[in-house]
Amino acid sequence: MTSDPVRLGVAGLGRGFMLTLPSILADDHVRLVAAAAPRSESREAFVAEFGGRAYASVEELAADPDVEAVYIATPHQMHREHAEVLAGGGKHLLVEKPLAISMDDATAIVDATVRAGVKLVTGPSHSFDQPVLAARRLIDEGRFGRVRMIHALNYTDFLYRPRRPEELSTELGGGVVFSQAVHQVDVVRVLMGGEALTVSAMTGAWDPARPTEGAYAALIQFDGGRFANLVYSGYAHFDSDTWQDDIGELGTVKDLGRYGAARRALATVSSPEEEAALKSGRTFGAVDVPPVAPHAEHFGPIIVSCDRADLRLTAKGIEVWGDTERSFIATPADPSPRAEVLKGLHDAVRGNDPPLQSGGWGRASLELCHAILDSARTGGPVTLQHQS
Amino acid sequence: MTSDPVRLGVAGLGRGFMLTLPSILADDHVRLVAAAAPRSESREAFVAEFGGRAYASVEELAADPDVEAVYIATPHQMHREHAEVLAGGGKHLLVEKPLAISMDDATAIVDATVRAGVKLVTGPSHSFDQPVLAARRLIDEGRFGRVRMIHALNYTDFLYRPRRPEELSTELGGGVVFSQAVHQVDVVRVLMGGEALTVSAMTGAWDPARPTEGAYAALIQFDGGRFANLVYSGYAHFDSDTWQDDIGELGTVKDLGRYGAARRALATVSSPEEEAALKSGRTFGAVDVPPVAPHAEHFGPIIVSCDRADLRLTAKGIEVWGDTERSFIATPADPSPRAEVLKGLHDAVRGNDPPLQSGGWGRASLELCHAILDSARTGGPVTLQHQS
Repeated sequence: MTSDPVRLGVAGLGRGFMLTLPSILADDHVRLVAAAAPRSESREAFVAEFGGRAYASVEELAADPDVEAVYIATPHQMHREHAEVLAGGGKHLLVEKPLAISMDDATAIVDATVRAGVKLVTGPSHSFDQPVLAARRLIDEGRFGRVRMIHALNYTDFLYRPRRPEELSTELGGGVVFSQAVHQVDVVRVLMGGEALTVSAMTGAWDPARPTEGAYAALIQFDGGRFANLVYSGYAHFDSDTWQDDIGELGTVKDLGRYGAARRALATVSSPEEEAALKSGRTFGAVDVPPVAPHAEHFGPIIVSCDRADLRLTAKGIEVWGDTERSFIATPADPSPRAEVLKGLHDAVRGNDPPLQSGGWGRASLELCHAILDSARTGGPVTLQHQS
Repeated sequence: MTSDPVRLGVAGLGRGFMLTLPSILADDHVRLVAAAAPRSESREAFVAEFGGRAYASVEELAADPDVEAVYIATPHQMHREHAEVLAGGGKHLLVEKPLAISMDDATAIVDATVRAGVKLVTGPSHSFDQPVLAARRLIDEGRFGRVRMIHALNYTDFLYRPRRPEELSTELGGGVVFSQAVHQVDVVRVLMGGEALTVSAMTGAWDPARPTEGAYAALIQFDGGRFANLVYSGYAHFDSDTWQDDIGELGTVKDLGRYGAARRALATVSSPEEEAALKSGRTFGAVDVPPVAPHAEHFGPIIVSCDRADLRLTAKGIEVWGDTERSFIATPADPSPRAEVLKGLHDAVRGNDPPLQSGGWGRASLELCHAILDSARTGGPVTLQHQS
């Protein structure tokens, strides 16, 4: 039991907030005290549900003296402006991945927090998932030897979920590379340890009606000849959760009867406005807060090849495939799927060991996303510059 | 029922022959009439089991007037010499993958068959597996739209099976790229259609006791922005057949109680000679001919992403993940897992539609293997020259 929860404000009461809310409510590392959101319905729902203050602007939230830290869950392209305002108000920051869209914005966010002397954590991302962190600890204990290769794959219907227009424009931060590759990159960086050196990648943009990257494959070279291979399809019909005990990304068991639901729902809309409205219908205030998921979150099958074992991560724990035998290490139960993020924020704010996923970390992961896009465009490998 | 089986000779009675033998015996497209092998025990076993002639040299086999075609299943580095001798004797050829180790040797083999006016099929390879060929036919029918991305993964203990010394030396054609990548490349080429343009790859050689590549990941760019992603570990503890109904590469259900058997067996040998002897113990004459496998062969999970469906290949057939529903298309039962290879040889020899997997095809797949090695060494993409 934490006796001094961080008094948390939230900027943005959209989909990102909804996905983290069950964990926030179940956790004692943070206490929700205020929010900023442009839509009055969202603000009213916030006050009705949690009490506290709900502001129309981020500036007002930044001026609230009772708020210690703010979770920035606004659209990617607004992170910089909101981070600068909030850091200027002395608030510690938890910024949704990707930290920003442009590297300049990411650098500006890091600089703003350094200037203000506040902490910055980039998250939530799936690198905070309990099986990922548990695997990292097992690897650090040394009994499996060195991590040599990591393979991460994920097949989802990401591109057919309801989107705002900018989410379908790469220049505006849309497509699967900024929103999804950043998870795989984060997970791989945590598990591999060490520094990424180069990226070679190919991307696919196959659906003219949704003109952004919906799929990619990437090779990331790490120090010592180690490498990671990522593959992702957001156009997918195949659902790689079939290899994850039919547990979805958010830690809940999937209803297999809903096969094809995203494409079916999308077929009912006839304009970008209708599609955006469909997305708004999934935000805070429009639907009930879901219960805490029973399993850890995950981002698709991940296989970590070490000298003396392969580790396969599932939503329930870690399959250890050793030289002579197999075993399964169940992930210790956390109060909620996003507990590690909230604990990480608490540790950072209270001066304990902060999580790996700092602002610089978030910027390095963003650089990898850009490298995927750049390599796919140029056809050659991209050498990374901002990893250390 | 084929009334005119091709009278088949075999060069090499080792492991490759053993793996194809059950299909040869079950098939009426070919009839085994002669063999060449350096070991007298193998020759004696051949005659005792099948009758026919068994020669100590490939030259004698080439001179046997009753032999129409020869299956060259000798070690990779001998393919060229044996192919030149046998083509010179007017024999049609079925040459095990990889067609050769060097591109020069592959070209010499193709040239020798052209000069002699004999047919050349490169195989067996997993591109002849029934689910692969069935998927290709479904794709050609057009209802799934264009193939956009293919992902192939395979985690095996390849590097820990008993090996002759040259199989652990890349210069001599050892390692997983020549022996295993060639399968993935063949399968992907059949499924994708069209022409491969470039390769970017990384390889791993992690075990100093087995100093060759044991793992790789590769991106292959095809025409029209389409691409394939391959990942392979021959160091694996994880067994990707767990995602293939626990059916092994050769179409038999795995005995999960034998987990770790390859590494355990290898731990009992103390010299390269003992290891080579362990391998010889698995060749023809040393062990019984296994029964015909009940399922198709396969080379690990393969996901083919098309515009309107993803196809997942298993040893039992094809999972079709469509826009609105899933279905399963069982692969039609063939007389044996390698029936398509033998039928292909028969068609080529008898002047019917020959299989895709010609000599030029085998050379193109070999070029892709070299490109994987070259890209891993140089760090950049390799442009292919011999694909058409």
